[in-house]
Amino acid sequence: MKKQIPIILVNPQMGENIGATARAMLNAGLVDLRLVAPRDGWPNPKADAMASGAIEVLENAKVFETTEEAIADLNFVLATTARLRDMEKEIYTPNTAAKEFVSRIDSSQKCGVMFGCERSGLSNDDVALANAVINVPLNPDFSSLNLAQAVLLITYEFYQATLTEVDLNDIKMKSSPAPKAELENFLSRLESDLDNAGFFSNPEQKPHTVRNIRNLFDRTGLSSQEIQSLFGIFKALKR
Amino acid sequence: MKKQIPIILVNPQMGENIGATARAMLNAGLVDLRLVAPRDGWPNPKADAMASGAIEVLENAKVFETTEEAIADLNFVLATTARLRDMEKEIYTPNTAAKEFVSRIDSSQKCGVMFGCERSGLSNDDVALANAVINVPLNPDFSSLNLAQAVLLITYEFYQATLTEVDLNDIKMKSSPAPKAELENFLSRLESDLDNAGFFSNPEQKPHTVRNIRNLFDRTGLSSQEIQSLFGIFKALKR
Repeated sequence: MKKQIPIILVNPQMGENIGATARAMLNAGLVDLRLVAPRDGWPNPKADAMASGAIEVLENAKVFETTEEAIADLNFVLATTARLRDMEKEIYTPNTAAKEFVSRIDSSQKCGVMFGCERSGLSNDDVALANAVINVPLNPDFSSLNLAQAVLLITYEFYQATLTEVDLNDIKMKSSPAPKAELENFLSRLESDLDNAGFFSNPEQKPHTVRNIRNLFDRTGLSSQEIQSLFGIFKALKR
Repeated sequence: MKKQIPIILVNPQMGENIGATARAMLNAGLVDLRLVAPRDGWPNPKADAMASGAIEVLENAKVFETTEEAIADLNFVLATTARLRDMEKEIYTPNTAAKEFVSRIDSSQKCGVMFGCERSGLSNDDVALANAVINVPLNPDFSSLNLAQAVLLITYEFYQATLTEVDLNDIKMKSSPAPKAELENFLSRLESDLDNAGFFSNPEQKPHTVRNIRNLFDRTGLSSQEIQSLFGIFKALKR
C-alpha cells in the first residue's frame, strides 16, 4: 500500500464535498478519511454520488465528535488555511508539506491534514491543535478553492512526493528515440538520395546543408517506428 | 499581469465544467479561455453559476470552430491525456510542463494547453496537433479526474512555477523566530529562576539538564511575542 496520510474534515457541511474529497483521496491512493461532526450526519447518500466510485473510502470513513479525538494517534498534523492568521505557526505550501510528510513517514511518524468547513474554514482552536499550517500559493486576488479542490491539491502533491525517480522515468520513457545507428543509417541514405537527385546544387554549401538536415532530425528524437515511416514516405516520393 | 497560458477546451459538454474551469484559471491568474465548438453553445448560463466570481474569464472567452484555429497563434501546445496513447510524443507531468512553459514564455513563445471533452478526452487528431502531451501521475487504479480538476492541477502547477524565491520567502517569513539575544536573555533568566527554586538537585547533572531545556526552546523557534508570553507564564507560576 502507498504511504498514507489521513484526511480530516472538520464539520464538513455538504455531503457532495465529502464525496468529492473521497475521490481526490483515492486519486492519490489515500484511504483514511476522518470526519469530525459532519453537519448532516453520516453516512450521507449525497457523498456517494460525488465519489465517482471511491466508495471504499466513504465506507471506511471514521466519524469523531471532536478534532482532538480525530488526530489523537497522529504525530504531525497540518491545518489548511485560506488566510494567513495572526498565529505563530510555520507555513508550508502543498509542495513543501508533501515532502515533509514523506520524510516523517519514512521515520515512522503518522501525519495528517485537517480541512475546515466550507463556510468558514478551521476555527482558530482547531488550527492551534496543528503543528503548522498549509497555505496554497494562488492568485491573491482570487484564491478561493472549494473544499474538494483544496483536498485534491494536497493529495496530488503528496502523491507526486511519493513517486520515485524510477516511477517518473517510467512515464517519460514511453516515447524513446531510436538507437543512434538507425538514425545514422537513415540520414546517410537520405543524403545519398538527395545527392543522386541533384539537391546539392552548390557543392561548397553541401556540408552546411547536411548539418542542418541532420540537426532537424536529431532534434525531433525520431523513434524506430517513425524512421520506418520516413523511409516509406521518401520511397513513395521517389516514384 | 502574470505570465499567461491559454486554456483550450475542445468540445466541452457541460457548462458547469466550463465555469469551474474559469474559476481554476483565475485561481492561477489566467484569463485566456478558448472554447472549440462547445456542445451547448456559448454563452452558457450554467457556466456562470460554477465560476464562483470568475466571470471576467467567461466574458472574455473566445469560441472557435476547429482546434486548428484555436491554437493558430501558439508556438508550443500540450495536450492533456488520461491514458498514454500509442503515439510518439514526449510526455510531461503537470510539474515539468509548467517549468517548460515558463522557460518558453521567457523566450517570448506563446504556450497553451488543450483539454478534451468530458466523455472521451481529446481525439487522436487533436492530440496529433500538440507538440507533446501532459499526463498527471495518479493512482493507476483510480486516476479519473473531472475536467475542471484536471485544469486546476495544470493551472496550479503553472502558478507555482511562476513564483519567485522572493514570493515563496514572503510566505514562509510570516512566522519568524526572535533574535537570538532575546532567546538567550529568556534562557538565562529561566536558569537562574530554576537555580533559586532548587530545581537542579544534582549539580553534576545541571549542565546536561540546562542543555536539554535550551534544546527544547531553541527547536520551537520562539517568536518575540511568544517569549514575552512565557515570561508572563513563569512570573505567574512563581507567585
